[in-house]
Amino acid sequence: MANEERSGAAVAHAGDPFERAAAVLELTVRFAETDAMGVVHHSAYVVWFEAGRVAWMEAAQMPYAEIAAGGHHFAVTALRADYRTAARFGDRVRVVTWVERLRSRQVAFRYEVRNAAGGELLATGLSEHICVDLDGRMAKIPAAVVERLRAGARQLAQEQLA
Amino acid sequence: MANEERSGAAVAHAGDPFERAAAVLELTVRFAETDAMGVVHHSAYVVWFEAGRVAWMEAAQMPYAEIAAGGHHFAVTALRADYRTAARFGDRVRVVTWVERLRSRQVAFRYEVRNAAGGELLATGLSEHICVDLDGRMAKIPAAVVERLRAGARQLAQEQLA
Amino acid sequence: MANEERSGAAVAHAGDPFERAAAVLELTVRFAETDAMGVVHHSAYVVWFEAGRVAWMEAAQMPYAEIAAGGHHFAVTALRADYRTAARFGDRVRVVTWVERLRSRQVAFRYEVRNAAGGELLATGLSEHICVDLDGRMAKIPAAVVERLRAGARQLAQEQLA
Amino acid sequence: MANEERSGAAVAHAGDPFERAAAVLELTVRFAETDAMGVVHHSAYVVWFEAGRVAWMEAAQMPYAEIAAGGHHFAVTALRADYRTAARFGDRVRVVTWVERLRSRQVAFRYEVRNAAGGELLATGLSEHICVDLDGRMAKIPAAVVERLRAGARQLAQEQLA
Repeated sequence: MANEERSGAAVAHAGDPFERAAAVLELTVRFAETDAMGVVHHSAYVVWFEAGRVAWMEAAQMPYAEIAAGGHHFAVTALRADYRTAARFGDRVRVVTWVERLRSRQVAFRYEVRNAAGGELLATGLSEHICVDLDGRMAKIPAAVVERLRAGARQLAQEQLA
Repeated sequence: MANEERSGAAVAHAGDPFERAAAVLELTVRFAETDAMGVVHHSAYVVWFEAGRVAWMEAAQMPYAEIAAGGHHFAVTALRADYRTAARFGDRVRVVTWVERLRSRQVAFRYEVRNAAGGELLATGLSEHICVDLDGRMAKIPAAVVERLRAGARQLAQEQLA
Repeated sequence: MANEERSGAAVAHAGDPFERAAAVLELTVRFAETDAMGVVHHSAYVVWFEAGRVAWMEAAQMPYAEIAAGGHHFAVTALRADYRTAARFGDRVRVVTWVERLRSRQVAFRYEVRNAAGGELLATGLSEHICVDLDGRMAKIPAAVVERLRAGARQLAQEQLA
Repeated sequence: MANEERSGAAVAHAGDPFERAAAVLELTVRFAETDAMGVVHHSAYVVWFEAGRVAWMEAAQMPYAEIAAGGHHFAVTALRADYRTAARFGDRVRVVTWVERLRSRQVAFRYEVRNAAGGELLATGLSEHICVDLDGRMAKIPAAVVERLRAGARQLAQEQLA
């Protein structure tokens, strides 16, 4: 039985292709992700957001591992998370990720985390990134990477409209 | 595309039903699970082992969440891990879990973690557990839980022999 | 040799007593907190913020463990983090925490994370919390807790002005 | 107030200098280190062991960061942990670390984790390591590193006998 699924499942977003191009990652809450309040610790969502953007890049045919292998990283410069409802051990959660904007040196992703069973909104998030080289210096996102991200987003958006 | 799958896929183990009843969990290495050596941090495997035994209990029709909801936990008393080959960000890994033994107050699980693509052995592990109640006191595993674990293991083993 | 120190060391903040009442927590970056970029993973700062507010409450004579023991928790409703400079394995970092506001049902903390050696700003953060009971329902912060937090902040601020 | 202290505080160990050369690291349990059982998750001890051996190397005047900066890492090949008593949020714990053995290509550390207040034994552990280069290939521990580790252990043992 699949207990984690990635897809480009349609998510309603008005506006440009990026806003329509969402990737969906489903995962099961790990016991290690809970805390003594009996619910998922808020730091786990930050890791889920990261898994969500990795899933987005894979769905867009520009795997993050390839970018890293090429000597670049998308360093996080800002993080925002708003928590609505607590998730619990064993819950299936769905992380919906899309690109907020893509510039020559920056990229930003938005996230929605919902309970996969009932669809209840658990949290929303935003992460902003700059491109850095192996020495951690700010760098332009390689043109080929930008183009592949744009083309992937268009393709993903088209699939979702189909 | 499924990036994590659970199944009772057959794994060769001689001996009693428990040893033949393995659950398989596939997961994708998260960037947060890597460290400055550029590979997966050894503590991540401990969390994967836990996810593996949770998957085993689900495959055996005795979800751990039900045991916890009933006021009992399987507290870890011993942990063993042997590391062979490093996993890296983005790798698909397969965690194969089976029950080493089940007693009235104790249960032990064994684990094999392999690269899902090539099958290369990454790590093996063992965890030993005692049953504790909500106050953390050692307790007998509820008889109904033991029976469901045994019945589930038999069913899982039969499916794997089929 | 002390490798982690808590204190009420003076930090310049204009405004009400809360803004002058900062607690300082020093810690050493753990290898497990790094990632394959060779620097500290951004999720580690979220855990450091939490350690910082726990240190603030201890410095203010209202230990969080007491609040939790009393059946209440400060659930995180919003998180903000801005990252300036990467921290690395072994670095000594200083987490400066103060209360942004305290209401009958809400509390918010602000954080500054600096390199302890050079004082370089690594990250800033904000966390907003609501008080919840053991069932996770929103609740008023117990009056005694509010009073102890206020008295502790005043005392902490006075110590810093001394 | 110091909430984490490292020292070479004397620990009774019969045998060679290594066995007498223990480093002590004190830390405070973070809320993020707890789980839904209300106690510290077993994977947290694995991270504490690592912090303990880093503290040992620092106490022995051969900081791990220097070894890493030199292009070598002590990759974990085996891990053993035995859990006796659960630690809880806010507890002060003491991690006592010493070298089990040091060879030209391998090193092993032993750990005892105790409650700092009462001295109660919480867990014991062992980790075995091989030296790897930047490409992850097994390598000899640089002779200068071995010598500094041995000299540091002798010095540490002498301080503890003094």
